[in-house]
Amino acid sequence: MNILITAGGTSEKIDNVRSITNHSTGRLGKAIGETFLTQGHRVTYVTTPQAVRPTPNSNLTFIEIETTKELETALLDQFEHQVFDGIIHSMAVSDFTTETTLSEDAFIEKLVAKLVKDGNLTNLTNLTDALYHSLDEIGKTIQPEKKIPSGTDRLLLFLKKNPKIIAMLREKQPQAVLVGFKLLVGVSTEELIQVGHAILAKNKCDFVLANDLEAIHGDHHHGILIDASGQTETADTKNEIAQLIVSKVEEKWRMQG
Amino acid sequence: MNILITAGGTSEKIDNVRSITNHSTGRLGKAIGETFLTQGHRVTYVTTPQAVRPTPNSNLTFIEIETTKELETALLDQFEHQVFDGIIHSMAVSDFTTETTLSEDAFIEKLVAKLVKDGNLTNLTNLTDALYHSLDEIGKTIQPEKKIPSGTDRLLLFLKKNPKIIAMLREKQPQAVLVGFKLLVGVSTEELIQVGHAILAKNKCDFVLANDLEAIHGDHHHGILIDASGQTETADTKNEIAQLIVSKVEEKWRMQG
Repeated sequence: MNILITAGGTSEKIDNVRSITNHSTGRLGKAIGETFLTQGHRVTYVTTPQAVRPTPNSNLTFIEIETTKELETALLDQFEHQVFDGIIHSMAVSDFTTETTLSEDAFIEKLVAKLVKDGNLTNLTNLTDALYHSLDEIGKTIQPEKKIPSGTDRLLLFLKKNPKIIAMLREKQPQAVLVGFKLLVGVSTEELIQVGHAILAKNKCDFVLANDLEAIHGDHHHGILIDASGQTETADTKNEIAQLIVSKVEEKWRMQG
Repeated sequence: MNILITAGGTSEKIDNVRSITNHSTGRLGKAIGETFLTQGHRVTYVTTPQAVRPTPNSNLTFIEIETTKELETALLDQFEHQVFDGIIHSMAVSDFTTETTLSEDAFIEKLVAKLVKDGNLTNLTNLTDALYHSLDEIGKTIQPEKKIPSGTDRLLLFLKKNPKIIAMLREKQPQAVLVGFKLLVGVSTEELIQVGHAILAKNKCDFVLANDLEAIHGDHHHGILIDASGQTETADTKNEIAQLIVSKVEEKWRMQG
C-alpha cells in the first residue's frame, strides 16, 4: 500500500521569536510509520521539526512543515503526484492561527475609535453588534505592533480559525482508508467514544483513534479505535495502537479492493 | 569561579496541549558553558527541554525548567544555597504569560455585561475608562473556556507581564559579574548598541551581548559585547562569542577580587 502519515505538532508564528506550539512528541506516529514499513508498505511521512521520526528506510520519504498553512500546501502538492491507499492523520494541528497582537492601550484606542465611528452605543443590541463589527475590523486590518511598549501590562492576541485539514484529506483522496485522531483531556470512556465517533462521521473517516491525555504516560498509551459502524477496539501501548491501526487499514483496503 | 548560565527558551502554557514558546536552540549557551568548563570553572546550567546542552562534566549541574515562573522559583532556590561569581543570562524569557482565553462570543458577552454594569457609555472618556476596567476584570477573573465552541471563528488570548528575571538576578547576587542578552530583529548597529547599553544600565549588568536575528545563520553569529563604559567588542561565531564572554567575565572578576 502507499501510505501517508502526518505526525508531530504544528506551530503558528506570533512574531520572529515566538510561536504557539501544539505539543506532540511524534512517538505514536513513529511507531505507526515503522509498523507500516515492517509490513512492506511505502510511507510518505509529514512531520514537524521537534518530533521524533521513524528510522530512515528506502520506502520512507520525509516532508517537514511547521505551520498548518505549510501542512496544507505540502499535502495539496503531494496529492498532485500521488494517490494514497491509506492516510493516518495523527499530527496535532492548530485549530487557530495568529491574526494580530496588540497592547491593551492600542486595543482600547482602536476599539473606541471604531465604536465611536459606528455611532450610537446607548442601545444594548447596537453595542453588541458594534463590538462584533469592531473586533472583526481590528482583527483583519490592524497590523501587530512592531515593538510592544515596555510599560504594557497586558497583550491581546487575536487568533483566527485554520482550515480543517482532515476535511480536505477526504475530499482530495476519496479512495484512501482514512484514520483520524482525537485527543481529549480527562473525560469518561463514553464521552471519548461519543466525541470520536462524531469526528469520524463529520469528516468521513474510516477509523478514529480516540485517546485521553490523562491515560498517556511514557509508553503506556490507552487508545480506542472506533470504526464507522461504532465498533471499538482498545490498545494500551503505542506499539499496540500501531499494530491495531496497521492491521485494520490493511483489512479495510483488502475489502475495498 | 562558580558560574550560573541560563539558556534555551521558556514556554508559557495556554492549556494542556498548547504553549507559547520562545525559540532558542540553546547552541550559544552550550558554547559558553563548555568554554567555562574548559577553563576549569564550575557551572550550574539552567535550561529548557528542547534546547541543546553542554556535554556532561563533573563540574556541571543541570536544572530544567519550562515556564518563566519555574525559572524564577529555580533561581531563587539556587540563591539560597549558592553564591555565584558570574551569571550569564542567555535564556530567551517570555515577557508575557497567559492570563485567559475566550472565544469572541464569550468575550463580547462578558464585555457587554461589564460595560453595562459600569453605566453610562455615551461619553468618550467614560467609554475608555469602562473598557480598561472591563478588560482588567475579564483578564483577572474569567477562567478560560474549558471547551472552545466548535463554531468559534476567533479567539482572544489575554497575556499578562511576567516578572523581570534579570532585575532579580542583580538584586539577589550583587557580587556576580552579570552578563545580559538582547536579541533584536533587523536593526542598525547603532540601534543595537544603543538598546543593548540601555538594557545594561537599567538592569545593572556588567556586560550585555547584543545581537540581531538577521545576523545569525547556523554557526555564523554576529554579536556585540557592550560593557558599562559603553566600550564594544564584536565576535562572528558562537565559539568566538563564548571565548569573548568567558575572558571578559574572568578579567572583570580578577579586577573586583
